[in-house]
Parts: sequence; structure tokens; C-alpha cells
Amino acid sequence: MSYHPQPKVSLVGAGPGDPDLITVKGWKALQNADVVLYDALVSPELLEEAPAKAVKIYVGKRAGKHSYKQEEINRLMLECAMKYGHVVRLKGGDPFVFGRGHEEMTYLAGYGVPVYVIPGISSSISLPALQGVPVTRRHLNESFWVLTGTTRAGTLSSDVSLAVKSSATVIILMGIRRLREIAELYRSEGRADIPAMVIQNGSLPEERSAVGTIGELPALAEAQQIGTPGIIVIGETVRLHRDFSKTLFQLNSLHQELVAQ
Amino acid sequence: MSYHPQPKVSLVGAGPGDPDLITVKGWKALQNADVVLYDALVSPELLEEAPAKAVKIYVGKRAGKHSYKQEEINRLMLECAMKYGHVVRLKGGDPFVFGRGHEEMTYLAGYGVPVYVIPGISSSISLPALQGVPVTRRHLNESFWVLTGTTRAGTLSSDVSLAVKSSATVIILMGIRRLREIAELYRSEGRADIPAMVIQNGSLPEERSAVGTIGELPALAEAQQIGTPGIIVIGETVRLHRDFSKTLFQLNSLHQELVAQ
Repeated sequence: MSYHPQPKVSLVGAGPGDPDLITVKGWKALQNADVVLYDALVSPELLEEAPAKAVKIYVGKRAGKHSYKQEEINRLMLECAMKYGHVVRLKGGDPFVFGRGHEEMTYLAGYGVPVYVIPGISSSISLPALQGVPVTRRHLNESFWVLTGTTRAGTLSSDVSLAVKSSATVIILMGIRRLREIAELYRSEGRADIPAMVIQNGSLPEERSAVGTIGELPALAEAQQIGTPGIIVIGETVRLHRDFSKTLFQLNSLHQELVAQ
Repeated sequence: MSYHPQPKVSLVGAGPGDPDLITVKGWKALQNADVVLYDALVSPELLEEAPAKAVKIYVGKRAGKHSYKQEEINRLMLECAMKYGHVVRLKGGDPFVFGRGHEEMTYLAGYGVPVYVIPGISSSISLPALQGVPVTRRHLNESFWVLTGTTRAGTLSSDVSLAVKSSATVIILMGIRRLREIAELYRSEGRADIPAMVIQNGSLPEERSAVGTIGELPALAEAQQIGTPGIIVIGETVRLHRDFSKTLFQLNSLHQELVAQ
């Protein structure tokens, strides 16, 4: 077998789901792909942007199919780049937000394969935004904090315990299964009344969400059968969601009140 | 004067600087713009994507030009939508990350003008990524925290005091002028040795950065005359920057070490 003279890999963030939320740069990379290795949360429509002759391989970890280990994905990227040339590694959201993109980059760099990072729209910021909830809002808060709900040890990250004390908008990825535990942490801090929401399949036609206080959210999510893949958003800015301020009058009153402060 | 029958506003994130880091959705909105209202950090090349006949108005707050007040921008958006139809409000980064996008949305909604939010690539995540620094890295940390360095009161956000105690990668926007104060906070927590970097004009050809410990960063940034607009990134993941691990050998050793843990 002969090797390709110019192996390279583009690590591309596909964004939160809606195929039009990929960047122009990522879209151009796809159009020049010889191979696309894609994850479970990537829109099928994006794959059509790659040339028809490009090799497309699903390496996701869902839906009962063969689950690729990270080492297998790494090796596949390398082999495909050496054999075919330009590999687009298409990952949901942003490759460097809990995406193991850096591990993939390091592996390839170890073999001298050039790697280009093309950021993606992170679900952590964009999914609340698409529901009208900003991660930051002047007068309401001064920061946002993005955490994983699932650590390697299988426990809730200790950062969550610190986060419940902060005024940050707290966004927890991969934490739906631990929603009850998270709600308890807020309750133990006397903060069960803080606004919160879960969003499932955000930015897609099948998007669903529940909005309430963090104290009542586990029951709300269960009643509405909202599950994975989803994110949890907790903080005062969730109060700006239309389901908290049903009428424009209320929304405008809040706005006036905030501006007057 | 007659009013346009279908006024609407798209709140579009332009991304961190590189014009190709806008989303496909934002790019399509620009191509259908009757008016573009744009900020200082938006690439001039993006404006060329709008139709030649579109009205383009700079409403940024830099460079000694007339500085639009937020109320003026709000009114201008409304008037332009009523008069011309589709206004694209093009903002640097993401409109909802310290962008006052939500205030603009609320104002327009109060007049019944439909608003469409199109997220952008936030500099907070993407600028470190483009230098090979992930905001999260398995085995190193479990969260990242994005803060503003400049609060309304003109003081450093109290969230920063909490952030210095966390294992989160801490990203501070609009904080370059307070770098020395921030470094002192880390020093007072006994954490002056934590890796940190400043990035100026990230993702643009004129990008510049300094990498060191947070303790030495103020002097480094001063010596290299790195100033605004810029961001500060503090945390163990900055150790993965090429200037911390000069050779692939070191990088791979660290990788092996992390994976073996």
C-alpha cells in the first residue's frame, strides 16, 4: 500500500445539532474531505456536504452499535490520513469542550501529522441562547461555569459543590442522569428556588425542555420524560425564559427594573 | 415614510475575529440583510458578504469615533427594521456572552419585532483552542469558568475570588487591564505557579500571546506589550501549550502519564 503524500486532520466542531450551526471554516473543510469520521451527535445533513466519494465512518458511542474505543478512533484517524489524505474528524459541539479533541490532537502530533483545530458552537452557550436565555446578563450575573456531570470516577464533579455557591450561570453537560443529586446540592445550600432548565436535543426540530426552579426540575423533567442527550442550566438568567415571564409586560418590567438598578 | 411590512432582526455572533469562524447560518443571514449594524471586533471581510445595496452602520465603541450608547443602538435597530426590513445585528464572539444581546432582544420584542438569535463562536473557548489549549482535558480538570474582568461597578467581579479556588480553567474576558490584580489573587491563594496565558487579537493574523505562570504573566505581558482586546486563560490545561512543552517528546510523556493515571 502506498502512503498519501500529504496526510492531515481537521478537528472540526459540528455545533449543537442544527447543521447550519457549523462554521463556514468547518463547512469548507468538509467540502475538501477525503475521509469523515463522525460522532453520534452530528447531523446526517452535514455528511452530505462532504464529496460523494469521501469515505464516511461513524465512530460514535451510542445506539447499541459497535462502540469505538478512543484508541481505535485515534488509530483510525492516523491510518485514514496516511492512506487517503485529508481526514475531517467531525465532533458534536466544540472539539475541546469535554470532547477529547486534545487527546486526538496529541496522538496525531506524535506521528507528525498536521492537525488543524476548527472550533464549533458549544451547546453549553448556544442551547440556552436559542431559548432566549443568555449565559450572562448585565445586572444579573457576571460569569458562567460549564461542568461535566459525569466524571471518570463516576461521581459528580467536586466542582459542582463549589458552583452551587457561585452567582455564575451553571451549565452541566452529561448530567441529566444526576439531576436529582444536583438539585439536592442546591437545596442543601438553601438555593432550591433558583431558576433552572433542562434541554434535550437542543437546536433540532425534536428539541424539548422543562423550566422551573432547580428544586422542582427533577420532577418536571421526569413528568415530561426529558432525558439524554441533554444539558442542565441553572442560574438567575433562566428567569428570563419565556416560561418564567409569560407576558411581554412582565419581561419589560423586569428589564426596566434591571436597567434602573 | 412607509413602514416595511416584515421587520425582523437577526442577532448574529460573528465569532472571535477570523471571518470564516462565523456560522453558516449567520453567513446566510448576512446574505439576506437589508441593514447590517456591526461592532468593533467584527471582521471587515464579513461585511462584504452582505448585499452591496445593504446599509452598513458601524455602532462599535472603540477607536475614538462617536460612541453609540446602548439605547441608541436599540433605537437604531428598531428604526432600521421598520424602515428597511431585515436587520443583521452583527456582534463579536457570541451575542449572549457579555454581549448585551439579550437586552437588544428584549427591547425589540417589546415592539413586537421578531428576533432570531444565531449563536457565534465565543472567544472564551475558541482562542485557547486555536493555540492548542483545551478548556477541558480529561485527567486534568472537569470544568471551565468564563468571567468578565470589568464589572459595572468598575471592580473585579467577586466571582473571581471564588474562581481562584476552583480547579476550573478560568477564562477572563475584558480583564487585561486587571491582570496584575488577578495575579495577586492567585498569589494570595498560594497558586501563583498555575499556568496562564494572555491572547491578544486571537484568530487574526496579528494574534499575539504570552504564556507563563499566572505569577509571572503580568510582567511577561508588559514586556511583550500585549494589551486589549485580549483574554486571560488560567488553569492546568494551559500547561499543554507548546510553550510549556517545547518538544513532542515532552508532550507525549505528559500524555502517557495522564492516560496511565
